[in-house]
Amino acid sequence: MILTVTLNTALDLTYRVRSLRPHASHRVSEVIERPGGKGVNVGRVLAALGHEVTVTGFAGGGTGRAVRDGLAGTGGLTDALVPVAGATRRTIAVVDEHSGDTTQLNEPGPQIAPAEWATFLDRYTELLSGASAVALCGSLPPGVPVGAYAGLIRTARSLGVPVLLDTSGEPLRRGVAARPDIIKPNADELAELTGSHDPLRATESARRRGAHTVIASLGPNGLLATTPEGRWRATPPGRVHGNPTGAGDSAVAALLSGLVTHLPWPMRLTHAIALSAATVRAPAAGEFDRATYEGLLERVSVTTAP
Amino acid sequence: MILTVTLNTALDLTYRVRSLRPHASHRVSEVIERPGGKGVNVGRVLAALGHEVTVTGFAGGGTGRAVRDGLAGTGGLTDALVPVAGATRRTIAVVDEHSGDTTQLNEPGPQIAPAEWATFLDRYTELLSGASAVALCGSLPPGVPVGAYAGLIRTARSLGVPVLLDTSGEPLRRGVAARPDIIKPNADELAELTGSHDPLRATESARRRGAHTVIASLGPNGLLATTPEGRWRATPPGRVHGNPTGAGDSAVAALLSGLVTHLPWPMRLTHAIALSAATVRAPAAGEFDRATYEGLLERVSVTTAP
Repeated sequence: MILTVTLNTALDLTYRVRSLRPHASHRVSEVIERPGGKGVNVGRVLAALGHEVTVTGFAGGGTGRAVRDGLAGTGGLTDALVPVAGATRRTIAVVDEHSGDTTQLNEPGPQIAPAEWATFLDRYTELLSGASAVALCGSLPPGVPVGAYAGLIRTARSLGVPVLLDTSGEPLRRGVAARPDIIKPNADELAELTGSHDPLRATESARRRGAHTVIASLGPNGLLATTPEGRWRATPPGRVHGNPTGAGDSAVAALLSGLVTHLPWPMRLTHAIALSAATVRAPAAGEFDRATYEGLLERVSVTTAP
Repeated sequence: MILTVTLNTALDLTYRVRSLRPHASHRVSEVIERPGGKGVNVGRVLAALGHEVTVTGFAGGGTGRAVRDGLAGTGGLTDALVPVAGATRRTIAVVDEHSGDTTQLNEPGPQIAPAEWATFLDRYTELLSGASAVALCGSLPPGVPVGAYAGLIRTARSLGVPVLLDTSGEPLRRGVAARPDIIKPNADELAELTGSHDPLRATESARRRGAHTVIASLGPNGLLATTPEGRWRATPPGRVHGNPTGAGDSAVAALLSGLVTHLPWPMRLTHAIALSAATVRAPAAGEFDRATYEGLLERVSVTTAP
């Protein structure tokens, strides 16, 4: 079983409006509602790839119930979310029909009480005993200590479970110091962590700070991987048009899938690129187009990096 | 008991953001969640004024549960909402901290099935037997016939229960033809109904179309009342600054309160103006400031209109 942790789960709403104008009133013509938060998205993609996956983190209130109801129908996915008194946050993506652009509104998330955090830590340790890998994903809700990921990484490492960390800012900085197996920052997150805007230099710097492997996601330019076994650059065959929401989560899912099935790095990167691109190509955010995925597997270029 | 009908109830969310910019990502710093929809707001104000009130209409899904949970703590208010399979809509008011302006996003509401509509009609008739007045408020959700209010007005009139109608567009036009006791259109709704932008002429025209009494709400200029007993103009002592959300619903509550306690028209209008202004002055949308309300009662000017 692969375990994904989403401390700040979300009910993701997508609203379609004619044209978003500040200070006006808008009729929403279409509402799409789905469980969200990075680790939840990663879990859904892993399940679609045929893995057994368990999703943990927090869920509460009516929005938390909606998240859990949405997950209940996903075959291969086990809901191990810890109930909390506060309500799971909503995120709202307002899609402008006119321009196709998206405006994002993100609620901060519920306040997590110390007792709820303690309950989660027990649950997490218990779940790790059956896990072949764990992914720690996304932002921290209020009340969770900023060094939370560092502690979760140490627990996983002490139990011999490989850890992937996908977050940003101070939680990433503190997490890296606890020596996670893989981090997957984008160019901005990597620059914030290391102070360097040069991807090669920045990935090396991130490794010196504690990450065993750094997979830098360079958007449409693909991935740059710096691992104990070598360095690779993986690039898609061409620019992919569509909705990039969830593309990073799909890359994380592919990296975890490759980790537990012991694929060599170039193949893991190929899968990550193809699955990301297939997610951009899918009409609904966070889904992936299987034909695009399979078609791209033979067309991703992977070269050793200097 | 006063009955209020809200066929398209809502979970009203108020989001505070630094400054709303289309196509950017925003952290919401504060989320306020409360039961909404015009008739629900009217019911809450009536309960605060000391009336026994029953709220009916439709509620469904997690959002419907949140609406019902929010109503459960309101003393004097009975929840008689009819459960439906679809989810109650959300409305989102995004308040820009920088400018103080509000951007509104309104979901359309759930599809109401014919069997659900039939269940509501039975419930409505049953509730009318204990009602001293009924208010029919707001928009119609998908699936409810556009002539719905006309039917509800006829049922109430056949049972001798006075009816106030507060809606707009085609549902207002059809409703007026069924001869409601009171309608409370704003200037735009009145112009749309009658084709006239002159308030005096338009209120007379609306009466000829079937409304016994027309209370035209002229925003900061107060109310113009055309009743079988005479015509009055009621104006607040000065411009009131604040959040106008819910001010119209408070005026409806005051008109219903005056109706069931048999106040003369000038006093009903005074209450309506004072309660509206006290709602604009309250910090949270849809609440009212009791000191402002009581202070204004002596300062509203009511004159007979030509």
